[in-house]
Amino acid sequence: MIRYDVTGMGNAIVDVIAGVDDKFLLDHAIAKNVMTLVDEYRAAELYAKLPSPREIAGGSAANTMAALASLGGNGLFIGKVKQDRLGRSFAQSMKDSRIDFETAMAKDGPSTACCLIAVTPDGHRSMNTYLGASRELAPDDIDEKKIAASAVLYIEGYLWDAPQAKAAITKAMKAARRAGTKVAFTLSDPFCVGRYREEFMALLRNDLDILFANEEEAKALFEVEDFDRVFQALRPWAGVAALTRSEKGCVVVKDEDVHVLDAVPARVVDTTGAGDAFAAGFLFGLTHGKHLADCGRLGALAASEVISHYGARPELSLRKLASEANLLP
Amino acid sequence: MIRYDVTGMGNAIVDVIAGVDDKFLLDHAIAKNVMTLVDEYRAAELYAKLPSPREIAGGSAANTMAALASLGGNGLFIGKVKQDRLGRSFAQSMKDSRIDFETAMAKDGPSTACCLIAVTPDGHRSMNTYLGASRELAPDDIDEKKIAASAVLYIEGYLWDAPQAKAAITKAMKAARRAGTKVAFTLSDPFCVGRYREEFMALLRNDLDILFANEEEAKALFEVEDFDRVFQALRPWAGVAALTRSEKGCVVVKDEDVHVLDAVPARVVDTTGAGDAFAAGFLFGLTHGKHLADCGRLGALAASEVISHYGARPELSLRKLASEANLLP
Repeated sequence: MIRYDVTGMGNAIVDVIAGVDDKFLLDHAIAKNVMTLVDEYRAAELYAKLPSPREIAGGSAANTMAALASLGGNGLFIGKVKQDRLGRSFAQSMKDSRIDFETAMAKDGPSTACCLIAVTPDGHRSMNTYLGASRELAPDDIDEKKIAASAVLYIEGYLWDAPQAKAAITKAMKAARRAGTKVAFTLSDPFCVGRYREEFMALLRNDLDILFANEEEAKALFEVEDFDRVFQALRPWAGVAALTRSEKGCVVVKDEDVHVLDAVPARVVDTTGAGDAFAAGFLFGLTHGKHLADCGRLGALAASEVISHYGARPELSLRKLASEANLLP
Repeated sequence: MIRYDVTGMGNAIVDVIAGVDDKFLLDHAIAKNVMTLVDEYRAAELYAKLPSPREIAGGSAANTMAALASLGGNGLFIGKVKQDRLGRSFAQSMKDSRIDFETAMAKDGPSTACCLIAVTPDGHRSMNTYLGASRELAPDDIDEKKIAASAVLYIEGYLWDAPQAKAAITKAMKAARRAGTKVAFTLSDPFCVGRYREEFMALLRNDLDILFANEEEAKALFEVEDFDRVFQALRPWAGVAALTRSEKGCVVVKDEDVHVLDAVPARVVDTTGAGDAFAAGFLFGLTHGKHLADCGRLGALAASEVISHYGARPELSLRKLASEANLLP
């Protein structure tokens, strides 16, 4: 049995990325810098309007797994696509990234999910997601032995938008608990937190070992207005928390071990995937014996690569960058 | 006997402020964003070149005392001026600020200190200081009963540039120790730290209860390149540390109590006195029973007022601003 550093579970999505101006967002009623769920009709309508769109495999947890592999980590991704053009393209991209992806493709039902991403000149990304086949993830897609063979099970909050997927998540978390696999979770998006706040709080209390959140998501979770209040709310929590703050860097905390880390400077082109890449760097560090501060530094390094170009997955070898920064084990 | 919240000791200086462009700094060999010591000749030369200079009472600890009074705090300032035009102007300004200032004026010797401050359009300030009479501070200027009647004795690192003043500082710190008065210290400037690093480290180990440092000063003190390494170096220290990070806010720490606080947004005109005002807000909070986080918030609020206009002392009532922000005791 292969040992995995991380098994990631998330919506399997193909990104469709285009550069636009702020007027485009206004003209097409696109909410800026967050993820909005759309139906197939609205997705097709926006797709037709996006100037020079590029297709590239995406999905938050899938991006994390690709970045983990770029660092030299060993990963498995669980997520649902349909056996259509986008679905095959998604599967090929996971293979190209050297991430195992064995979830059975749906033969019928809704088509493979896509996320239409409008990137404004300030580097912010505004996402409109049609979940399609990704909502069909089911308990049968979970191989408990593979979860047990993973150091970390990483779950994206966005999966809560796929209600059928919950039984699969529950099965995976139970398998993780039994095997001593750590459970990591990302809050994904402040609006997503708004939709499932009570459930996410219950997860935090009962099921999680590692939490990823950006400042806005964490404020939404704890319903506070001030970063320090988020931080104080998390201090008594027993797990490892990584709170990201864009250009302000991140704060990572585990019990009395607290680190306040800088962002790695980058020329920001497109912030899509910054949080995904951060989680990859952090989890790579954590599963390779690095101290908490270096886990945060690896996260910041991975994020800096991904925001310096269009697309949510690394273009340069993160392993090489980490080696140059003396951050490899 | 009057009870003081804070007795401040520092160089008594009159600021001469002028707006310039970066070319002016280059043309006149002025080091940007730090404090450089100059002799009387160089001071006179620069004074003649500064366009439309304005005179205003300054000096780091004196600014802090003025901001403390603006918050409603009760303060005494100890520092040396000569009985000349600038010296009388300095004394009047302390009186106008409702800060007690009783240090005997020098009747002869060097003239009152001045600091020529060139402010560039980015709000940064480049300071050239002629210390003059302020270097003459002597043990006789210290009234031990007044130190004992203060909750906090606040000392600026810049005073180390006035070697004669050291006997006065030692006398004041001993009086504080005997009386249970807390000793607070600001590192003042990264170059100042470079000049006296070993002495400042010894102070930290042996004499201080409260430390103020901005990020660059703290990096210079601990000889590290990374904010988190400063923070980790200070974690085992028994005192209260307030680490300021300009627009990144501040981190305040006392034992296991750690707070990561945001800056208060401001339209930056002139950063002169930002750290001085921060210390005032923080010490006002600390001497009025506020929790550590609110001490930091009071500091950030005071700094935001001072950087939004020319000059290092508040123009609006900080007490009113603090009341509006619900930060008064």
